[in-house]
Amino acid sequence: MKGLWLENNEFVFRDDLNRPEPEKDELLIKTLCTGICGTDLELQRGYYAFTGIAGHEFVGEVVTQGALFGKRIVSEINIGCGSCALCTSNLQNHCVSRKVIGIKGHGGAFAEYLVVPEDNIFIVPADVSNRHAVLIEPLAAALEILEQVNPSSFNRVLVIGSGRLGILVAEVLASTGLKVSLLVRRQQRLRHVGNPDINIIEQISDSDYPFVVETSGQAAGFSTALAAVAARGTIVMKSTYDGQLALDASRIVVNELTLVGSRCGPFEKAIDWLLSHNLNHLIFSGHAFEDVEYAFSRALDPSIYKVVFEPG
Amino acid sequence: MKGLWLENNEFVFRDDLNRPEPEKDELLIKTLCTGICGTDLELQRGYYAFTGIAGHEFVGEVVTQGALFGKRIVSEINIGCGSCALCTSNLQNHCVSRKVIGIKGHGGAFAEYLVVPEDNIFIVPADVSNRHAVLIEPLAAALEILEQVNPSSFNRVLVIGSGRLGILVAEVLASTGLKVSLLVRRQQRLRHVGNPDINIIEQISDSDYPFVVETSGQAAGFSTALAAVAARGTIVMKSTYDGQLALDASRIVVNELTLVGSRCGPFEKAIDWLLSHNLNHLIFSGHAFEDVEYAFSRALDPSIYKVVFEPG
Repeated sequence: MKGLWLENNEFVFRDDLNRPEPEKDELLIKTLCTGICGTDLELQRGYYAFTGIAGHEFVGEVVTQGALFGKRIVSEINIGCGSCALCTSNLQNHCVSRKVIGIKGHGGAFAEYLVVPEDNIFIVPADVSNRHAVLIEPLAAALEILEQVNPSSFNRVLVIGSGRLGILVAEVLASTGLKVSLLVRRQQRLRHVGNPDINIIEQISDSDYPFVVETSGQAAGFSTALAAVAARGTIVMKSTYDGQLALDASRIVVNELTLVGSRCGPFEKAIDWLLSHNLNHLIFSGHAFEDVEYAFSRALDPSIYKVVFEPG
Repeated sequence: MKGLWLENNEFVFRDDLNRPEPEKDELLIKTLCTGICGTDLELQRGYYAFTGIAGHEFVGEVVTQGALFGKRIVSEINIGCGSCALCTSNLQNHCVSRKVIGIKGHGGAFAEYLVVPEDNIFIVPADVSNRHAVLIEPLAAALEILEQVNPSSFNRVLVIGSGRLGILVAEVLASTGLKVSLLVRRQQRLRHVGNPDINIIEQISDSDYPFVVETSGQAAGFSTALAAVAARGTIVMKSTYDGQLALDASRIVVNELTLVGSRCGPFEKAIDWLLSHNLNHLIFSGHAFEDVEYAFSRALDPSIYKVVFEPG
């Protein structure tokens, strides 16, 4: 089959990849659309070692015979061991032996076919396009914040970072009625902001935000969060950080701050959110696997919201 | 008056100190008993600059004429500006212009007399001894954890650090019915642990504590907390940290941890706690101000729980 093979931090187009074979309780999925995510760019930069087929933001069609044949689906990316205390407490996302589709120990969707555990899938409603379905995984990550922090406890929030996740976070938080300020470094990103109630700012002028969401994953972004948050405030860390982060721990203690790490979220709520909110302003760029080099270069262009592969 | 003058990181006995004059809304207090706290040891080590009379864990007697004359009192140590948004929201502990008795901008209780704002005082019940009344301030700091985190959300807690605050934290948490493990480095500290239900451990053998309280204030203690806490767990940072703390931020995000900074707490609840719990096993060492050098050397002896000055 056609797809992208990742080896030595390089994505290479190949048309001789083996179609994966579903094991027990797995389904074979024909890929319809797969997004390039920040994690994929980090795989390319050598953030960590992965050899194989990456790609975890995807929508596909079930081709295994059975009740689900022909259904359009998305998939939760974490695959727990199924037997540890975390897995049996419905926390398989935190299983220490977990595999992660397209990231760790399990092949992904940068190919014509992939396999996923049947327990992981969610059927995509007809009203959600393939391109928007690709956003279900990052949208779930944005919605995870609402599982951890009650937005009605706050009168406003500062979102730091106007990357793709930062914008989804701002949209999700604004949709709860919370007053959102989005700190933007690159003007080209502004076109991706749809909700006119989101207040775009280019610098922080005060230090009394009761609630801050840091999405940049940069030490500088975290320092900005610490500087902007009010005493007894909450900072959600909604990004991965590379290596050690040096922080002013006394400030956390003296100001009695709460820090909350936040990762993957609820797919079913992301699907519901997509059905009731409009993201039609987002600009996508669709490519064939053959165009891998050009597609990845487009993924660095801030004027495009999301680059996707559409095998067609 | 007699007392200790702190200058160039040295506490020196003097008998020629000026008795402070209460300003409007302040009371003159005759010191009965003042504890040496970790912060005082840090002042001595030059943790930060303070010239004057330190001492903030104290009990005294009101000598200003009026309704409060002769009352035995303790005092909340933070003095807010009284007019900022934080002060008017009952968060004067977080006022950015606050003074702190015996620590910042306001003389303390290492002397025969001090002045305190009338709004800051709490009357000590007759059933609480002077020495135990000195523990009200650190006990309030330990009880602050219960203002921030609901202990009934967890089945057990790990307390890291068996210093004076760590032991009070363990006693307070055990008194809620929570199963407490206390990580102890120095065996001499064990005699200060009163509640037989507190499980003493010398090393961490598992990494699934849902709730960890870090009281050591050391980078190593914080690393232990990160290693011991379960996915989706909570770490309370119950200590001050000197300088920057390097931490594995990815672990916080990937494991969706919550970190909560925790500082000063509710005095009235600390007084209530003392009335219903027994701390008679704690070993005190009482001294005159003249014995400053010996008293501070005793404060480093782990077999003594608390060194106090008792001007008599």
